[in-house]
Amino acid sequence: MSSNYRNFRNSVPWLILFLEAVFIVAFYFLFSDDGAPRSSISYPAFQDVNHMVIFGFGFFLTFLKRYGFSSTGFNLLIIVLGVQCSVLIEDLLVFLLQRANEDGLKRITKAVVSMTAVVISTGAVLGKTNPVQLILMTVVEIIVFHMSRWINKIFLGVPDDISMTHVHLFGAYFGLAVSSCFSEPPPRSEKNTSTPKSDLLSMLGTVFLWVFWPSFNSVLAVGNKRNAIYNTYFALAVSAVTAFVLSVLTTKDGKFRMTHIHSAVLAGGVTVGYAARSIEYPWIAMILGLLASVITILGSYCLQRCLNPALKIHDSSGVHSTFGFPAVLGALAQVILLAIKNWTNLPRLGYLVLFHVGAFCVTISVALITGFITG
Amino acid sequence: MSSNYRNFRNSVPWLILFLEAVFIVAFYFLFSDDGAPRSSISYPAFQDVNHMVIFGFGFFLTFLKRYGFSSTGFNLLIIVLGVQCSVLIEDLLVFLLQRANEDGLKRITKAVVSMTAVVISTGAVLGKTNPVQLILMTVVEIIVFHMSRWINKIFLGVPDDISMTHVHLFGAYFGLAVSSCFSEPPPRSEKNTSTPKSDLLSMLGTVFLWVFWPSFNSVLAVGNKRNAIYNTYFALAVSAVTAFVLSVLTTKDGKFRMTHIHSAVLAGGVTVGYAARSIEYPWIAMILGLLASVITILGSYCLQRCLNPALKIHDSSGVHSTFGFPAVLGALAQVILLAIKNWTNLPRLGYLVLFHVGAFCVTISVALITGFITG
Amino acid sequence: MSSNYRNFRNSVPWLILFLEAVFIVAFYFLFSDDGAPRSSISYPAFQDVNHMVIFGFGFFLTFLKRYGFSSTGFNLLIIVLGVQCSVLIEDLLVFLLQRANEDGLKRITKAVVSMTAVVISTGAVLGKTNPVQLILMTVVEIIVFHMSRWINKIFLGVPDDISMTHVHLFGAYFGLAVSSCFSEPPPRSEKNTSTPKSDLLSMLGTVFLWVFWPSFNSVLAVGNKRNAIYNTYFALAVSAVTAFVLSVLTTKDGKFRMTHIHSAVLAGGVTVGYAARSIEYPWIAMILGLLASVITILGSYCLQRCLNPALKIHDSSGVHSTFGFPAVLGALAQVILLAIKNWTNLPRLGYLVLFHVGAFCVTISVALITGFITG
Repeated sequence: MSSNYRNFRNSVPWLILFLEAVFIVAFYFLFSDDGAPRSSISYPAFQDVNHMVIFGFGFFLTFLKRYGFSSTGFNLLIIVLGVQCSVLIEDLLVFLLQRANEDGLKRITKAVVSMTAVVISTGAVLGKTNPVQLILMTVVEIIVFHMSRWINKIFLGVPDDISMTHVHLFGAYFGLAVSSCFSEPPPRSEKNTSTPKSDLLSMLGTVFLWVFWPSFNSVLAVGNKRNAIYNTYFALAVSAVTAFVLSVLTTKDGKFRMTHIHSAVLAGGVTVGYAARSIEYPWIAMILGLLASVITILGSYCLQRCLNPALKIHDSSGVHSTFGFPAVLGALAQVILLAIKNWTNLPRLGYLVLFHVGAFCVTISVALITGFITG
Repeated sequence: MSSNYRNFRNSVPWLILFLEAVFIVAFYFLFSDDGAPRSSISYPAFQDVNHMVIFGFGFFLTFLKRYGFSSTGFNLLIIVLGVQCSVLIEDLLVFLLQRANEDGLKRITKAVVSMTAVVISTGAVLGKTNPVQLILMTVVEIIVFHMSRWINKIFLGVPDDISMTHVHLFGAYFGLAVSSCFSEPPPRSEKNTSTPKSDLLSMLGTVFLWVFWPSFNSVLAVGNKRNAIYNTYFALAVSAVTAFVLSVLTTKDGKFRMTHIHSAVLAGGVTVGYAARSIEYPWIAMILGLLASVITILGSYCLQRCLNPALKIHDSSGVHSTFGFPAVLGALAQVILLAIKNWTNLPRLGYLVLFHVGAFCVTISVALITGFITG
Repeated sequence: MSSNYRNFRNSVPWLILFLEAVFIVAFYFLFSDDGAPRSSISYPAFQDVNHMVIFGFGFFLTFLKRYGFSSTGFNLLIIVLGVQCSVLIEDLLVFLLQRANEDGLKRITKAVVSMTAVVISTGAVLGKTNPVQLILMTVVEIIVFHMSRWINKIFLGVPDDISMTHVHLFGAYFGLAVSSCFSEPPPRSEKNTSTPKSDLLSMLGTVFLWVFWPSFNSVLAVGNKRNAIYNTYFALAVSAVTAFVLSVLTTKDGKFRMTHIHSAVLAGGVTVGYAARSIEYPWIAMILGLLASVITILGSYCLQRCLNPALKIHDSSGVHSTFGFPAVLGALAQVILLAIKNWTNLPRLGYLVLFHVGAFCVTISVALITGFITG
C-alpha cells in the first residue's frame, strides 16, 4: 500500500505536468482563431453541455461507496486534460489536412462532447484502475476516437456532426474492452458496495443528465436543431416512464429499484441521439425511447446472469447496458429509418449500410487494440 | 401492508403502460410540426423552466422524512406523463377548433408550465395518497386545467398567455380540494416529521425555484419579456427580504424559521406573475412582493390556528399559503392596476372584473368537482 | 448569549425593514427604463451569473461546520439587499451626472457582478461577525465600491466594463481589512472546524463556480465576448490541472488536499478576468492560469506560516490567497500585456501604469478606511 502510494505520488504529478507543458507549447503553434467564421453554436448551449458533463457524469459515477470524491474530483481533472488534448488533435488534423478553421467556441464544444466517450469508459473501469492508468487511458482514448472519426471521414465520407454521434458507442465498447483486461475484484469487497446516500447522489446525477440531454443531442446538429430538441425530449420522457414501469415489474416486491431506473432513464436519449435531427414525427422517437428502455433493463438482466461471467467482464457501472445497447439500437434504428426513406434508391441504401458496418468495425477493432495496450 | 403493495404492484405499471400506449398512438394521429411558424421561445428559456420544474419542485417537496426518494422520483414520473398528456390535449384542441399550429418547442414549454399546477397540487396531498391516485390525479388535473383555459378562451376571450398565469391559483385550490377529501393522518405519525437534512434539501429547492422564477414568468410572455424579467426579479428580492424579517419577528427566540422562509420567499414571484409584463415601474412590483410575503406568513399563521381545523384541511406542504394566497393577491393586484389604467373606460373595466370573477369561478368549481371525483 | 440574541432580534429586522423602505421609495424616484437602448446582455448570461453568485458562493462558503444554513440563507439575504442598493447607487450616479440611461437587465447584471465583492469579503469575516455587522458591511461596501469605480471613471477615464473587473481585488482586500479589526477566535473553537460533508458541499460550490466562470468573465465584456469565453475556459482548465498537481506535490502523503484544490481551481479565472477580452492567443491565458494556481498554493503556504501571524489577520476562508493574489497577478499581467503591445507608444504606456497604480491606491485606501469604520 505504502509503496503504491509513493509510486502514485512520484509519477502522477510529473506525468500531468509534462502533459500540460506539451499542451501549452502545442497551443502556441496550433491554435489560432484568425479568419474563422462565427459558428452557429450558441454560448448557452455550450454551457449546458459543459455543466452536464462535469456535474451530471460527476454524480452519475459516485455510486460506489469509496469513490465519492475520487469520481467528482477525478472527473474534473480528466475532463480538463481531455478537452485540451482533444482541441489540439482537432487543430493538428485541421493543420495537416488544410481544412478550414472553425470558431474557438465550436472547437471547445466538440472537445467536450468527445470527452463523453472517455467519461463513459471511465465508468466501466471505475474501481479497478489507479490514477496514472486513468490519465493514460484518457489521452489514448481521445486520440483513438479522433482517429476513428478521421477514418470515417476519409474513407466513408461521413460528415463531422454524424461521426460525433458515435461517441456513446465508442465510449461504452472501449471501456468494456479495457475493463476485460483487468482482473475482477472480489465481489464482496468494500469497493463495490453502494450506500443510500451515494445512490441518491447518483440518482441526482441521472436526473441532471436527463434534463440536459436535449442540449447534448442538439448542440452539434447542423440544420434542424428544434427537431433534435423535441425528439430527444419525447424519447427521454417515454424512456423514463418505461424505466419506472419495468423496474416495478421485474422486482419481486414491486418497489422501484434504483439501479434499473438509473440506467434505463437515459437509454432513450442515447438511442435517439443518432437520428434525432432526421426524425420527422415524435411518435417514432417515442417508440425508440420505449424500445431502448426495454432493451436496457432486459439487457442488464441477461448480462448479469449469462454474458458477464462467460466473458469475464466486470462492468461496475452497468456501462454496457446503459450506453452500449441503446447506442447499438440507435445505430440500427437510424439505418432502418434511412432504409425506409431511401428504399427506391438502392445504391444510396447500400452505401448507408456499408457506412454503419464500417463505423462498427472501426469501433470494435479500436476497442480491442487499445484494450491490449492498456492491459 | 402486504396486500397494499401487491395491489400497488399489480395496478401501477399496467396503468402507466396503458397511458403510455395511448399517448404514442395519439401522438401518431395528432402531433405534427408542419407549417408551424417558429415561435419566439428561445431554447435556453425552455431549458431553465424544465430544469426548474424537475429539480426545484423535486427538492421543494422532499422535506417530509419518508418522502425523499418518493418525491424526487415520482416528481419526474408525473412530470413526464403530464407533459405528454398536456401536449396531446393542446393538439386535440388545435385539431378540433381548427386553430393555427404552433412550434413543437412552444408546445412542450406550455406543457411544462401547465405541469406546475399538478406539481403544486401534489404538494398538497403528499403523504396521503398512493401512486395510483397521484397518477390519476395528474391526468384528471391536466385535462381539467386545459378545460378551464378553454372555457376562459371561448366565453371570455382571454388570450392564451394570460390564462396560463392562473396556473398557481388552479394548482393550489385543486390540490386543497382533493386534500380535503382525504382523512387527516394522525399528527404524531412519522410521515409528517422533517429532518434537518430534508429541511436543507427543501431550502435548496426553494432557492433553486427563486433563481429560475424570472425565466418562468417571462417564458410565455408575449411582447415585453425584459420587463417581466426585472419586475419578477425585484418582486422576488423584496419578498426574500421580507420573509427573513417576518420570520425573525414572528418567532419567540428571534431565529429564522425554515418553514416561514420556505413559503414566503417565493410569494413575490407568484404574485407578480399575473402582472409582470404590464407593470411599468419596478417599485410597484416591489410593493407587491412585500405584500405577498406578509400575506403568506400571516396567512400560514391564521390557517394553522383557525381555518384548517375548522375546514379539516390538512395541507402538508403549506401549499395554501405558499401558492394560494399570493395567487389571489396577484389576481387582485392585476385588476386594481388595470382599473387605475382604464378608469376612464368603464365598459372595458367592467369586462376585466367580469373576466377575473369568471376565472375564479371556473377554478373553484373545477376544484370542488374533481375533489369529489378523486375522493 | 441571551442578551445577544435579544439585541439581534430587536435590531436586525427593523434595520432591514428600514433599508427596504428606503429602497422602495428611492426606486420610485430614480428607476426608470424609458428611452434606454436595449443592451447586448442576453438573458441566459444574466441567469448564469445570478445562479452562480447565489448557489456557487452559497456553497463555497459552507465549509465551516456551524455555518451551513447561516451562509446559504444569509448569502441570499445579503445578495438581494446588495443588488437593490447597487442598482440605486448606479441610478443616482446616472441622475447626478446626467449620463445616458441603461437597460433594466444590464443594470441588474452589473449589480449582481458588483455583489461578488461583498460576497468575497463576507468569506473573509465569516465566523467573526453578527448579522447586523454583515448587513452594514454590505451596504457600506457597495457604496464604497461604486465610489471607487466613480473615482476611476472621473479622474482616470477608466471605462465601466474595465473598472468592473476590479471586483475581486476590491472584495478580497476590503474583506481582509475588515477582518483585521476583529479579534482572532480561539483556534480550537468548534466554529472553525470543517466536516467531510461540509467539505463536499464546498467542493461542489467550487466546481459550480468553475463551470459558470466563463459566463462571469464575458457577461459585461464589450466587443469580443467569444474571446473572453474561451480564454477563460482554457485558463480555468490549466488552473484546475495545476491545482491537482501541486496539491499532490506539497502534501506529504501524496493525496489530494481539499483546501488546496478549493482555492487554486478558481485562481485562473480570477487572473484572466482582467485581460480575457484582449488576449488573442489561448496559450497566454493558459500560462496565466498556471501562474495563478502556483501563486495561490504557494501564497496560502507562506501566509499561514509567516504573514498572517505577523499581521494578525485571521482569514477563515482563504480569501487572500483565493482571490487576492490572483487578482494582483491579473492586474499585473494586464499591464505587462498592454506594455508589450504599446511599447512604441510611451505616453499611453505611462497612462496605463498610472491607471493601475491609481486603482490599487483607491482600493487599498478604501479598504483601510472602511476597516476602521466597521471596526
